[in-house]
Amino acid sequence: MSVLVCITGRNNDKLMMKLNEALPEVKIELWPNCENKADVEFVLAWNAPDELWRQLPNLKVVQSYGAGVDGIPLDKLPNDVQVTRIVDKQLSVDMAEYVLSHVLAHKLRHGEYSANQANRNWKPRRAKSSNVVGILGLGELGCKTAQLLSSHGFSVRGWSRTLKRLANIDCYAGEAQFEQFLSGLDYLVCLLPLTQATTGILNTKLFSSVSSDCVLINVARGQHLVESDLIAALDNNEIGAAVLDVFQTEPLPEHHPFWTHPKITVTPHVAAVTNLDTVVAQIAANARACLAKQSLQNLVNQQTGY
Amino acid sequence: MSVLVCITGRNNDKLMMKLNEALPEVKIELWPNCENKADVEFVLAWNAPDELWRQLPNLKVVQSYGAGVDGIPLDKLPNDVQVTRIVDKQLSVDMAEYVLSHVLAHKLRHGEYSANQANRNWKPRRAKSSNVVGILGLGELGCKTAQLLSSHGFSVRGWSRTLKRLANIDCYAGEAQFEQFLSGLDYLVCLLPLTQATTGILNTKLFSSVSSDCVLINVARGQHLVESDLIAALDNNEIGAAVLDVFQTEPLPEHHPFWTHPKITVTPHVAAVTNLDTVVAQIAANARACLAKQSLQNLVNQQTGY
Ligand SMILES: NC(=O)c1ccc[n+]([C@@H]2O[C@H](COP(=O)([O-])OP(=O)(O)OC[C@H]3O[C@@H](n4cnc5c(N)ncnc54)[C@H](OP(=O)(O)O)[C@@H]3O)[C@@H](O)[C@H]2O)c1
Ligand SMILES: NC(=O)c1ccc[n+]([C@@H]2O[C@H](COP(=O)([O-])OP(=O)(O)OC[C@H]3O[C@@H](n4cnc5c(N)ncnc54)[C@H](OP(=O)(O)O)[C@@H]3O)[C@@H](O)[C@H]2O)c1
Repeated sequence: MSVLVCITGRNNDKLMMKLNEALPEVKIELWPNCENKADVEFVLAWNAPDELWRQLPNLKVVQSYGAGVDGIPLDKLPNDVQVTRIVDKQLSVDMAEYVLSHVLAHKLRHGEYSANQANRNWKPRRAKSSNVVGILGLGELGCKTAQLLSSHGFSVRGWSRTLKRLANIDCYAGEAQFEQFLSGLDYLVCLLPLTQATTGILNTKLFSSVSSDCVLINVARGQHLVESDLIAALDNNEIGAAVLDVFQTEPLPEHHPFWTHPKITVTPHVAAVTNLDTVVAQIAANARACLAKQSLQNLVNQQTGY
Repeated sequence: MSVLVCITGRNNDKLMMKLNEALPEVKIELWPNCENKADVEFVLAWNAPDELWRQLPNLKVVQSYGAGVDGIPLDKLPNDVQVTRIVDKQLSVDMAEYVLSHVLAHKLRHGEYSANQANRNWKPRRAKSSNVVGILGLGELGCKTAQLLSSHGFSVRGWSRTLKRLANIDCYAGEAQFEQFLSGLDYLVCLLPLTQATTGILNTKLFSSVSSDCVLINVARGQHLVESDLIAALDNNEIGAAVLDVFQTEPLPEHHPFWTHPKITVTPHVAAVTNLDTVVAQIAANARACLAKQSLQNLVNQQTGY
């Protein structure tokens, strides 16, 4: 068997070096190099070209190079191929901290005081009393984020596909409870995986259900958000502000209106960055499991798409 | 006995209303009104005129209208007068949250990304790895702040007059251990009371001991900081940045250099604002204790000055 790395749009030198160190017994190639396609049983992939998948007759495992699998075309893979993703405890901690930092920055009016400072304007105000946080998605990242915000005294709700039970979090599930979950939220955090069911979920209809001061924090995927709906909602004062870490196109194009919108905070996809060593260790473990025909870590459910 | 309120520089209407509600049995006057000075046993004060104290022959208690007593001239009071201050649990929670929010904003580069956004510049970077936080003062506010930062994974040191023992906090005390406490700090938070011993403690000498990226957060009193030393330290890259909530003169004067300094964040004395209801309840309890010759809450040690 051999391992093929097919990650487009970034420099993979360091990754290849570390993978070779971690798996000295395995042949690892970086696409488009691939001596013998029939040898490839394990592919580490992100945004691989569609034609790749038809060319690998003995493919067994696709390991996503990320926490999400939206970079893997699940519907184009042969049925017996297993798909795995990265799960990294530190990722959840970093994500929760990113979200908390932006929630606190709004609550304590960092942006307002910074604008006042620019105008030499001394204008003390009470911190915002808005307190109800909703988290879309209660998986690895959503759960940790919900718990951290709850421990800081926020009133936290969570929404998932199947109903969860979590201490101090009001849990809602499915479309039937979506409106109830959204109603009156002061902060809305998107931590859903990108699937057919969740694409475009952050739209005009949703914005009309939350509080008119609501701060939207999208840290999942750019395709969750209908970008023009957000601008309309902000301009019509249907919601208060947005913090965006992910975008339909990344890097965010130079002439995109988000850059200059006074109610939008842009960060360059940095909320939770996987640690290369953790990633390499998980990939190596899964590659060895594949070789030994043992069960894999962090399998993806190909039915639900995440 | 009667109660005299002598708080200068603010509107006291709401306070007087609530005090009268809480103490219907007691005569309460707002300075300069004072029918019978010999009746006054209890004064609620902040920045009262110096001559007041000589005019009250039967003064027993001075209650500071704040967590600090730097608005009370302890050395000008007769020896047998007791001094009390406000202690408010919510104040500690708010202070800890203010400090955490600014530490996280620096760690996660909020300011840097905001400047990049203004330039349409997509430039992902790792969060800062700097991790060592030092807290000057381990009282009501310092202790809570130290614990919150520690729970967020920061390596926390604290400094006080007498040595403390606190879980997960490295404790230092007194001048003898000051250098050791400061050495290599990434964040330095001042939560000392303002006394003779602490005035001007944030100065050139201190700035030369911490890390050159160190973020100073002064949330205690403006007089702790030698303002010109801070500007020099920032301009010489001896420290990294400063977040200031308190100033020598408040409101910060219009032409003060802090407003426009690129490495200084100004907030208008809002880190922890006492809740009027809590304050009134404590004042009422102390006024009643004074009347009944019982012991008072939150007494200040007039020897140490805090
Ligand atoms: N910005 C960044 O730096 C960054 C970094 C890492 C990851 N991410 C994004 O974060 C996403 C979440 O990651 P994760 O590891 O937390 O995912 P996860 O563990 O798979 O959890 C997904 C959660 O979403 C819920 N969900 C999925 N489809 C749903 C639907 N149709 N309706 C309602 N709930 C639904 C799931 O419900 P059940 O619990 O019922 O299954 C689950 O609670 C990733 O997919 C990725 O896109 C962003
Ligand atoms: N910015 C705001 O919104 C705001 C709001 C409220 C208060 N404050 C400020 O915060 C200050 C602290 O409040 P607090 O309630 O935490 O005070 P506190 O309970 O009296 O605690 C004071 C701490 O400072 C230490 N200390 C005092 N003098 C010292 C010295 N010479 N050397 C070393 N350590 C010394 C004390 O040491 P020991 O433990 O050994 O006695 C104690 O740990 C207040 O005085 C006020 O100025 C600011």
